[in-house]
Amino acid sequence: MTERIILDCDPGHDDALAMMLAAGDPRVELVAVTTCAGNQTVQKVTRNALSVCAVAGIDVPVAAGAAGPLVRPQMVAPDIHGESGLDGPVLPEPRRAVDPRHAVDLIIEEVMAAEPGTITLVPTGPLTNIALAMAKEPRIVERVKRVVLMGGGYTRGNRTPAAEFNIIADPEAAQAVFAGAWPVTMVGLDLTHQALATPEVVERIAAIGSPLSDFVVEVLTFFGHTYKEVQGFDAPPVHDLCCVAWVADPEVFTTRSAFVAVELTGTWTTGMTVTDFTDLLGQAHNTDVAIDLDHGRLWDMTVDALAALSAGGAR
Amino acid sequence: MTERIILDCDPGHDDALAMMLAAGDPRVELVAVTTCAGNQTVQKVTRNALSVCAVAGIDVPVAAGAAGPLVRPQMVAPDIHGESGLDGPVLPEPRRAVDPRHAVDLIIEEVMAAEPGTITLVPTGPLTNIALAMAKEPRIVERVKRVVLMGGGYTRGNRTPAAEFNIIADPEAAQAVFAGAWPVTMVGLDLTHQALATPEVVERIAAIGSPLSDFVVEVLTFFGHTYKEVQGFDAPPVHDLCCVAWVADPEVFTTRSAFVAVELTGTWTTGMTVTDFTDLLGQAHNTDVAIDLDHGRLWDMTVDALAALSAGGAR
Amino acid sequence: MTERIILDCDPGHDDALAMMLAAGDPRVELVAVTTCAGNQTVQKVTRNALSVCAVAGIDVPVAAGAAGPLVRPQMVAPDIHGESGLDGPVLPEPRRAVDPRHAVDLIIEEVMAAEPGTITLVPTGPLTNIALAMAKEPRIVERVKRVVLMGGGYTRGNRTPAAEFNIIADPEAAQAVFAGAWPVTMVGLDLTHQALATPEVVERIAAIGSPLSDFVVEVLTFFGHTYKEVQGFDAPPVHDLCCVAWVADPEVFTTRSAFVAVELTGTWTTGMTVTDFTDLLGQAHNTDVAIDLDHGRLWDMTVDALAALSAGGAR
Amino acid sequence: MTERIILDCDPGHDDALAMMLAAGDPRVELVAVTTCAGNQTVQKVTRNALSVCAVAGIDVPVAAGAAGPLVRPQMVAPDIHGESGLDGPVLPEPRRAVDPRHAVDLIIEEVMAAEPGTITLVPTGPLTNIALAMAKEPRIVERVKRVVLMGGGYTRGNRTPAAEFNIIADPEAAQAVFAGAWPVTMVGLDLTHQALATPEVVERIAAIGSPLSDFVVEVLTFFGHTYKEVQGFDAPPVHDLCCVAWVADPEVFTTRSAFVAVELTGTWTTGMTVTDFTDLLGQAHNTDVAIDLDHGRLWDMTVDALAALSAGGAR
Repeated sequence: MTERIILDCDPGHDDALAMMLAAGDPRVELVAVTTCAGNQTVQKVTRNALSVCAVAGIDVPVAAGAAGPLVRPQMVAPDIHGESGLDGPVLPEPRRAVDPRHAVDLIIEEVMAAEPGTITLVPTGPLTNIALAMAKEPRIVERVKRVVLMGGGYTRGNRTPAAEFNIIADPEAAQAVFAGAWPVTMVGLDLTHQALATPEVVERIAAIGSPLSDFVVEVLTFFGHTYKEVQGFDAPPVHDLCCVAWVADPEVFTTRSAFVAVELTGTWTTGMTVTDFTDLLGQAHNTDVAIDLDHGRLWDMTVDALAALSAGGAR
Repeated sequence: MTERIILDCDPGHDDALAMMLAAGDPRVELVAVTTCAGNQTVQKVTRNALSVCAVAGIDVPVAAGAAGPLVRPQMVAPDIHGESGLDGPVLPEPRRAVDPRHAVDLIIEEVMAAEPGTITLVPTGPLTNIALAMAKEPRIVERVKRVVLMGGGYTRGNRTPAAEFNIIADPEAAQAVFAGAWPVTMVGLDLTHQALATPEVVERIAAIGSPLSDFVVEVLTFFGHTYKEVQGFDAPPVHDLCCVAWVADPEVFTTRSAFVAVELTGTWTTGMTVTDFTDLLGQAHNTDVAIDLDHGRLWDMTVDALAALSAGGAR
Repeated sequence: MTERIILDCDPGHDDALAMMLAAGDPRVELVAVTTCAGNQTVQKVTRNALSVCAVAGIDVPVAAGAAGPLVRPQMVAPDIHGESGLDGPVLPEPRRAVDPRHAVDLIIEEVMAAEPGTITLVPTGPLTNIALAMAKEPRIVERVKRVVLMGGGYTRGNRTPAAEFNIIADPEAAQAVFAGAWPVTMVGLDLTHQALATPEVVERIAAIGSPLSDFVVEVLTFFGHTYKEVQGFDAPPVHDLCCVAWVADPEVFTTRSAFVAVELTGTWTTGMTVTDFTDLLGQAHNTDVAIDLDHGRLWDMTVDALAALSAGGAR
Repeated sequence: MTERIILDCDPGHDDALAMMLAAGDPRVELVAVTTCAGNQTVQKVTRNALSVCAVAGIDVPVAAGAAGPLVRPQMVAPDIHGESGLDGPVLPEPRRAVDPRHAVDLIIEEVMAAEPGTITLVPTGPLTNIALAMAKEPRIVERVKRVVLMGGGYTRGNRTPAAEFNIIADPEAAQAVFAGAWPVTMVGLDLTHQALATPEVVERIAAIGSPLSDFVVEVLTFFGHTYKEVQGFDAPPVHDLCCVAWVADPEVFTTRSAFVAVELTGTWTTGMTVTDFTDLLGQAHNTDVAIDLDHGRLWDMTVDALAALSAGGAR
């Protein structure tokens, strides 16, 4: 049985790869793509999502969502993703128009229309859309199968020493999602910093030899440059990809149960995903936290998906 | 020219009077009523709104909104408003069904459909719906004429020493509203504690001698009892009424310009509307704060409106 | 029986008057003056304290204390008190050297040497010395009769909308003092803004016709100017004086029991003395809060004390 | 040249070993031991310090200090250190009386009396005494050579997921110390969890075959049991020892420069030592953070010191 997902993202270099894996892996059915301001403005990331659909032959609804966080001033990440949000390759013209629905309404409609427990939400940007959907239609919480989100970390941040970008960009939304009565898998920096697109990985992708694989190589090359410059990485961590990979195959990383809360009042720590694997805080566990990646398995399935898309074998 | 308003409320005893004034005063056009969890659950307050419409002969759309705050656990006020949210009178059966739209969508649609600068939002409960509408459709901010909200205070709270109920019930939503680039009038406890339904006022209302005036007397009697018991008031402050009164006639209270921010990180002060009338905080003023009430003017227009509604003279 | 006090202050215009009342009123015995950084640096306020002793003929130990707050960066108030901390009059040369003990040690020694329950601490600046003394010798808490402090407020601040200067200058120290298991009287802005040195008051003081009264008139004239300019007052509020006045005669103002906590984590409210007169916060009352001043009684005793000092009738 | 240190501690099993290394290593001169409430009350840890002096033949002043934190309620650690604070061995009678000075005065006097830049402070408990000494005599900051403290961590806590015990026990004091204009070395959990007293280590100590080594074995056996039970460690981390070891020989661990601030306002993160090795927070670096331990070097010098003390070769 395939896993039906709504990918709520802000492409974004690693979001682009997450879209492709979702479309190209036979174990996943991509129901729709929704977008949220994050790496760049919602206008830019929506355009980027449509371009990725065009280059990868993905034909699903793409709906635009929140233009900024619930409460705080907006934060974007041009240092990592460039002015467009997906700098590097030439972005092809969209082939499909943006869905007329707001992302929040698309999420609510799809979840309420589907059999309970069949839709997995995969947010790979700030959690504004998900929090808005919960607030507008609380019944989605019991109908969604699981939320598999990229964000946070249990030993580190990247925007501050304590906070990861997707969480600090809208910490109130993130806290609402973690506090919701649904199963949550947190794919944070401790996991995704293992998901490096090493030269060997890039070479394997290049070897596919298609326009799509060329596009992906350009994406990873730009991403590698900014990650090298800004954070000193030898190869870029392809964060968002890991969420979709785990939906396709939960063997791709181990998880450990924990209580996670988002710090909202810290002077230096706002946006931190405080993670209690034991019982120091006396709170019930609410999250499965990603721990150890199977790097080979991740990239095998990714290369396979890109090859399948290149051969026209996906939606 | 009449002032067109959307009343976003959580009836609630004083909300009920606000609805009646909005419907019965010729200077105000009540476009719609939207509801939000606050004094009681959204189911209860929506039912109450429909009952108030029935008893007062108000025939406008009533749409239900948010079932709880954006981020925090829900807080209700049965100590003040009873188990139904409008304890006291027998609540008549609704004559009209709830609008199929979500309150947030009703607000967005009405604002975007109207001429810019013609709709005033009058929230008299927690500000969740307004914050959600801003988040879903940011363009409403420049199209709304003004937000005239009941909430907060500049020298006191009622739920805590620092925080008033409507604000502390969803402080993140409140902060989003104050921070929005639209004109805001804050009608807080410093003003509304002047708006007492004294025995003389109740007597004037009773003298109208209609089923509606009987209903209102029962509403005020119950409200008077809980305010006496819980907060030691001699007569109950009819908070929400003041917002509508000011839309009808800005002479009903004076205002003073200030910067207002909602405290979100305090140990003892979360939900406080920190109000800087001068320049201690170095922030641009964003709010007109209600200061001194003309008690006679308030109750004159209220009695007139109730008489008009009793005579069938309103929608 | 006279009340024995240690006056811990940061002169400061109103501190100067507090010193004079403490020395000149027969119901109070001034054991010592200790100083703390506040209105100005500890060097400056100690020099000022010695000058005030010289001009007023006060012959008690003056010991210098903390140079800054426990945790936070230092804050001073030159806008109100000038560059010297006591701008206005010519400051006479000290006649007495500063005590060799640190203020904290003087406080501890005097309290531990006196009969239990006989020394009242009267802090009229930031509470750093008092908190340090508690931390170094916790037994003083049960031996001190009472702490009568100038600071805070229950409806207002002056450094921010929420916080008064003495508290926000060292909020952690203030919280330690309020949380201590000793009786505390809080003389905050709500009280002290009633203690105005009106033209009539200044005239009565001038009429004493002594070098001391001339000095006091100059002090009040400067203080009046800055309070007019910076805060728009018609006459300056002589805050610190009220604490000593109440020790001399508790009829000078009414008090009301409350729980008081100092907000330490607020974004906009740090340093606020959150005051719960009822039971909203569910905390045991720990403070007697000054409410209504008897203006005549305050200035009668002050004029009497200044006259007595002018006649050489005090220490 | 030997390094002169004042060891400010709360013995405490690992504090006991730190005392012994300080006394037994020829590269360190132990000037005095001061105590602070932490693992247990100040009465208990002072008694323990005197007992450790007795068993190890250490003959230096031992002065008692703060009985609790600056602002917050007291926190102790009986789960780890037992009811006495040093459960396990029979504690010998002290041979020496406690110094009459308060720890804070001892620290100030020794630092002000010594040549500038010659005294290193080694706090291995909560930082209350150090913060009080800074507050009482700010000039010590420029005279102390360095503060080498056990506390905090950059990826973990132990009392909460974010906070280590010594820091969260008095976070305001810790923040004052990190913010002081003196060189600070932070020896946190990331380092000390490498400093395990493995069975091989315990065997080497046992092989010394003296009453002192028997005592140490009992100390480590008890400590091993509680660390196994409470935190699941296979061998106990002897935190405090590492600070003294680094003073004796900076080759014992590597350090990395960082900005460190103590979180004081977090809901879940108060007491966290937020550590920015790069420039995410835009703050000047103020701390050398311990990173990688040379385990062999640590235990070699410790066994040597215990052997020297056993042979009577230390003070």
